[in-house]
Amino acid sequence: MIDLRPVGYIIGMLTSVLGLTMLIPAAVDWGYGSAHWMIFVETATLTVSAGLVLAIASRDGLRRTLSIQQSFVLTTAVWLTLPLFGALPFMIGVPHLGLTDAYFEAMSGLTTTGTTAIEHLDDLPPGVNLWRGILQWLGGLGIIIVAMIFLPVMKVGGMQFFRSEGFDTLGKILPRAMDISSALIRIYVGLTIACVVVYMAVGMTGFDAVMHALTTLSTGGFSNYDASFATYKGAPEYASSIFMALAAMPFIRFAQLMSGNVTPLWRDPQVRAFLRWMGYAIAVIVIYRMIRHEAAFWPTLREVTFNVVSTFTGTGFASEDVTQWGHLAFTILIIAGLIGGCTSSTACSVKVFRYLILFEAIKVQIQRLYSPHRLLRVHYDDAPVEDSIVNSVVAFFSLFILTYGVLIIALTFTGLETETAMTAAWTSIANIGPAWGPEITANGSVAKFPDSAKWLMSAAMCIGRLELMSVLVLFLPRFWRA
Amino acid sequence: MIDLRPVGYIIGMLTSVLGLTMLIPAAVDWGYGSAHWMIFVETATLTVSAGLVLAIASRDGLRRTLSIQQSFVLTTAVWLTLPLFGALPFMIGVPHLGLTDAYFEAMSGLTTTGTTAIEHLDDLPPGVNLWRGILQWLGGLGIIIVAMIFLPVMKVGGMQFFRSEGFDTLGKILPRAMDISSALIRIYVGLTIACVVVYMAVGMTGFDAVMHALTTLSTGGFSNYDASFATYKGAPEYASSIFMALAAMPFIRFAQLMSGNVTPLWRDPQVRAFLRWMGYAIAVIVIYRMIRHEAAFWPTLREVTFNVVSTFTGTGFASEDVTQWGHLAFTILIIAGLIGGCTSSTACSVKVFRYLILFEAIKVQIQRLYSPHRLLRVHYDDAPVEDSIVNSVVAFFSLFILTYGVLIIALTFTGLETETAMTAAWTSIANIGPAWGPEITANGSVAKFPDSAKWLMSAAMCIGRLELMSVLVLFLPRFWRA
Ligand SMILES: [K+]
Ligand SMILES: [K+]
Repeated sequence: MIDLRPVGYIIGMLTSVLGLTMLIPAAVDWGYGSAHWMIFVETATLTVSAGLVLAIASRDGLRRTLSIQQSFVLTTAVWLTLPLFGALPFMIGVPHLGLTDAYFEAMSGLTTTGTTAIEHLDDLPPGVNLWRGILQWLGGLGIIIVAMIFLPVMKVGGMQFFRSEGFDTLGKILPRAMDISSALIRIYVGLTIACVVVYMAVGMTGFDAVMHALTTLSTGGFSNYDASFATYKGAPEYASSIFMALAAMPFIRFAQLMSGNVTPLWRDPQVRAFLRWMGYAIAVIVIYRMIRHEAAFWPTLREVTFNVVSTFTGTGFASEDVTQWGHLAFTILIIAGLIGGCTSSTACSVKVFRYLILFEAIKVQIQRLYSPHRLLRVHYDDAPVEDSIVNSVVAFFSLFILTYGVLIIALTFTGLETETAMTAAWTSIANIGPAWGPEITANGSVAKFPDSAKWLMSAAMCIGRLELMSVLVLFLPRFWRA
Repeated sequence: MIDLRPVGYIIGMLTSVLGLTMLIPAAVDWGYGSAHWMIFVETATLTVSAGLVLAIASRDGLRRTLSIQQSFVLTTAVWLTLPLFGALPFMIGVPHLGLTDAYFEAMSGLTTTGTTAIEHLDDLPPGVNLWRGILQWLGGLGIIIVAMIFLPVMKVGGMQFFRSEGFDTLGKILPRAMDISSALIRIYVGLTIACVVVYMAVGMTGFDAVMHALTTLSTGGFSNYDASFATYKGAPEYASSIFMALAAMPFIRFAQLMSGNVTPLWRDPQVRAFLRWMGYAIAVIVIYRMIRHEAAFWPTLREVTFNVVSTFTGTGFASEDVTQWGHLAFTILIIAGLIGGCTSSTACSVKVFRYLILFEAIKVQIQRLYSPHRLLRVHYDDAPVEDSIVNSVVAFFSLFILTYGVLIIALTFTGLETETAMTAAWTSIANIGPAWGPEITANGSVAKFPDSAKWLMSAAMCIGRLELMSVLVLFLPRFWRA
């Protein structure tokens, strides 16, 4: 039987940290003179206490190593447990949500999805909106660490391709993990601060700059405005596009860049394909809108760039009603969301790396048809890729599409219209944010969805964020017996 | 350089045969006293002559064996050339279509897709409707032979799994192929005659029974009525369901059944899964309609059975406006179309066999996550499956989904609405038949689509029908150099 105490200990500590961060919105609400600050002190007390109790109860589990099995339980358990506590401020304080909506909002935050269950954001106490931003920022930070440290060892969806040499034995995970994690955290914090400064330079208020920087670098997409990014048309759209794109690039490349080496970033096939594909999408939609709606070039370029980058990176900010851009533009945006950013970033969805491997794998399959006796291998970055990685990637893609299909059916079962079910499934499995359909409220929230649909979406956000397989493995009875 | 003469010879002979079959609608129109019979005699003369000229010009290519390379060229060339001649009656005679529409109609026939480009079917000369049925019946016959003889040798999409022992060397293809082909043709003809008899027994006129039997056994779905199968509600729906289901089962099992062995059919995992999944879909939709629309059980069961079997098998007959059945029913039907029937039948789409392998492959990938050192293999029918077949199947599924996505974008480019583009892409890549959207006419035809959309759909029908890879391989420059 698996020893759950190390898992309990880590979750306990993370919960306590989450509780402590609740003091930030408490301070902000207090600074803004809102009595709502007491709510955050109360939930902080509850959360820190619960976390400490769990950590102390599992203190025997304090060790330096985690088995693969424990790593699987840990990642999913973190993303199931923390939203429970992250939801407390939404339930006890304004907006006084029920458990379903509050858990949905916190899960949407920690998975960096960005779909909201709240109908009126403009009137919320500032601390509550900031808390939504903090949840996304923490979720983004967590996902970078999971993608860099855990997924490669867990061999989920071909991520073993990104295993650094130091990770070869499990016993070494944690010490080495500390070095890498601290480098990644410095980059993440640095980019966030740079984003705040730039946002303020292009005209945002200090609060809005912080709020949106938190949800930009995490490719989360929460906003404190019902109008989302339409509140800040113009230069902020370009500024945001740059930071969203950075947030969707492999963070390890930034670490190499900081040590003076620009080549790895520039030569990375994922980065090149990601920028190229975004460029194509922007070019096609700009030309299409100029021809179809006789739109002027410069504003069109700005709006299209922002909304394409926002969808491609899975951030999900909106500055325009993209459904008004015509069917071609909308279809391209939907497909862009099913691609996503680069691995080892805060971006979600299938990711560019997997498509590059997938295209190569299909090409090799077709080539094998007429030269069955030649040894044909999948190549990436001019080097052959192990079969086990290729199989893992292709199986991941198939599983992603099948899960997407099943989710559409399941959401339709709850009574949603086809369009709503299709975009809600898209937004939750790929952690994007917006959805469209008659059940979506004016501010783009899912407040009017049936509860069953909200729970399904919460589960899908968690499964999608953790790369599907690492969650689904827990459903195999043999996993628990091993 | 590849020797195209054997390909030219076979295509010439097949074209001549196609020309000869045009004498059947000629005889029928003559029998009905329609002067239109002369059109068919004219196109028959043209087609037979062109075929003979091609065959004589390529007579040096007359041999007993085909290389793999030649097999690839042959299959695609057959499905590109025959529609050119099959289209002649639609252009020269009533309904006097242009090249785009006529080629579309013939391609839709020979690929057993069943989408029509003709706006009024009820008023056509009987011979023209019969010709549409004959095109589908010949297309279905062709596909069974391709699926049984060519695809396994060509190793397309994992079809090498169905390679019988006699096929191991290419030189043996043709002689052994003759035996198998003649058995399959006898079964196909026998089932068609049985279907005619049953259709007449449940109330169809002789002509309608023949017309619909031709398009039932081919899972084609053309009808001579604008109302499609709604003309024959009641018992004919059950009769048709049975024959559509039979047409979507592996024909080789029927051959074994005829030699007195029922076990292979009954034990075939594909057949069992196919019937089980259809049963689930029918049960869910019946219950859903009874609850939602307070529908009566027996008529609901009949309508749902017919329309589910029609979509699952990719036949595409309609007896009801299924968009009125609610979102859940519609979504299930769309997914059913993306599954399809069994391999080595006239059914299209991804097919049950590939889903069974795909589910197993994903399961093995997930199992490998926690027991990386155990040897885990994909099993089918209790036997391990070679890795090359599994990879081929998973790559096929990925390619199918990607092609579907690209096709939706391309169709949107031509100006179609999103709903139309999505269902038109679905219907053409999976050879189903119906599509929905504002550009679809009252009788379900694509007559009002832009020409570019019709050509895209024609190409997609051909690519989908020939299992994608066998066509796409021709686009690799190295294929022609090999
Ligand atoms: K997002
Ligand atoms: K069909």
